[in-house]
Amino acid sequence: MARALHHPLAVSLGDPAGIGPEVIAKCWDNRVAFGLPPFLAIGDPRSVAAVWDGPIELVDDPRQAGSAFDYGLPLLQLNAPRSDVPGHPSVAGAHTSLDALELAVGLARSGSASAVVTGPVAKEQLYAIGFQHPGQTEFVAERCGVSPGNVVMMLAGPTLRTVPVTTHIALHQVSAELSSGLIESRGRAALRGLQRNFGITEPRLAVSGLNPHSGEGGQLGREEIEIIEPAIAALAAEGWRVTGPHPADTMFHARARANYDAALCMYHDQALIPIKALHFEEAVNVTLGLPIVRTAPDHGTAFDIAGQDRA
Amino acid sequence: MARALHHPLAVSLGDPAGIGPEVIAKCWDNRVAFGLPPFLAIGDPRSVAAVWDGPIELVDDPRQAGSAFDYGLPLLQLNAPRSDVPGHPSVAGAHTSLDALELAVGLARSGSASAVVTGPVAKEQLYAIGFQHPGQTEFVAERCGVSPGNVVMMLAGPTLRTVPVTTHIALHQVSAELSSGLIESRGRAALRGLQRNFGITEPRLAVSGLNPHSGEGGQLGREEIEIIEPAIAALAAEGWRVTGPHPADTMFHARARANYDAALCMYHDQALIPIKALHFEEAVNVTLGLPIVRTAPDHGTAFDIAGQDRA
Repeated sequence: MARALHHPLAVSLGDPAGIGPEVIAKCWDNRVAFGLPPFLAIGDPRSVAAVWDGPIELVDDPRQAGSAFDYGLPLLQLNAPRSDVPGHPSVAGAHTSLDALELAVGLARSGSASAVVTGPVAKEQLYAIGFQHPGQTEFVAERCGVSPGNVVMMLAGPTLRTVPVTTHIALHQVSAELSSGLIESRGRAALRGLQRNFGITEPRLAVSGLNPHSGEGGQLGREEIEIIEPAIAALAAEGWRVTGPHPADTMFHARARANYDAALCMYHDQALIPIKALHFEEAVNVTLGLPIVRTAPDHGTAFDIAGQDRA
Repeated sequence: MARALHHPLAVSLGDPAGIGPEVIAKCWDNRVAFGLPPFLAIGDPRSVAAVWDGPIELVDDPRQAGSAFDYGLPLLQLNAPRSDVPGHPSVAGAHTSLDALELAVGLARSGSASAVVTGPVAKEQLYAIGFQHPGQTEFVAERCGVSPGNVVMMLAGPTLRTVPVTTHIALHQVSAELSSGLIESRGRAALRGLQRNFGITEPRLAVSGLNPHSGEGGQLGREEIEIIEPAIAALAAEGWRVTGPHPADTMFHARARANYDAALCMYHDQALIPIKALHFEEAVNVTLGLPIVRTAPDHGTAFDIAGQDRA
């Protein structure tokens, strides 16, 4: 990990019209108070200047970021069409955010950056320009040559970590998408990630049910019996400490949270609702299973407050 | 409301093998500290005696509960088959819990009880004896002659109230069950309940989306566009203060909660996960839209800890 101390974090600014630029600039403002390591912003400097009047240090090589960091926000400038009206996402902005993401991942892959932090993007605009991935996580996995099935998104806060099995799909598709194999591979990736990234030797995984009251013995849905229980049994047979399926509504209060190191959840909001209800300001999104370290803030573009100095 | 001061609350003990009997007995223990009004337990006294060694005052008329309350837990005894092994739900126990519920509702309907508090039941066993309702709420509505479509379940805690549009159905059925009309009627019942039961003159209702990120402009599901937005527009046209659809994962943190009086949620766990994550110990389940006042504790039978003096 010595490398991590000498190379900056590569931070993609995300959508130029979102709160990404403002949040990242304010992180630089608070670099001493937060004890932040040197980082390098990647994106359009106009999107930062539109919402922040601090100093920007344009660099054209990541190696300059470390020394520039004391004087201003180090920023690697992209050739980007003008798209910096806060709160108004555009197709031009989507191109800029995708270019920044691509470059950030490339720097980490090549060893020029210690890790990637990805700013929030506008998915509707990304889809409009042909982005084919459900989210940034899957894009990063592909660029790293890792099957999306072997990476998992973990939301990590001070008292709760959650991992969704399915992510950016419509709710009515969740049941059809679930399989014992998918739950097992996500569970395994989560357990290994708890060992590798969080230093937990014998991690405990709590698996949620899909239906109200975990299906009430099959009366309110059979996915628990047919899909989730076999996956839990398979993981347990490999020696992992796995429990469930737990009714999702009673597994996130303080006493329940004390019984596991991460909760494996069946769909996006089942994982995201509790972490954001409890830890909205503190949670981070960590991608487990990649050859690079990638995290993301646990917030979106927040176009409604962009450009108002409220991020 | 003068009547409420002179008649006891009718409390069904719920499943005799669950934690209902213990919780209700402990409420009597703490009647002074909690400032509780007189209440009348209904069920099998053996299920209380199995987990509590305080005094039980058997009564055969609700009018005796008020004076008996000072000396012991007033209990209206049912003729029930023995079914009191804590932690082991049975068909016999399901009959007892259903009889107690029926009697409690009858007492409130007739004016002999001021309100009904329903203890937690074992739905799997209730279904096994032919119980046809998705939950106790729908059963109470039917006994009160109210269409289940016009009552709503509200989970109310100190900083959050949530109302589910759909309740005890499998998750994969939620999308097909949702309609603009159902969302409107649930929303209207919730808004009227906030006025009537909570004294909020101009209640603010925040409506959730169904899909991740509220469908991301239709990319991750179209229910927001086709079903939820028209319902919000219809309620707003009636003059109600309604917002949404809000992405479910970002509507339950403290700052977001300050913007509404209740959240209208599309499915069971979307409403129950945040309230129980934040307010597991304090939340109550209030049924709005009934001619009687009915509340329930925001916990289940907890067979895993029944009979261990841990409830």
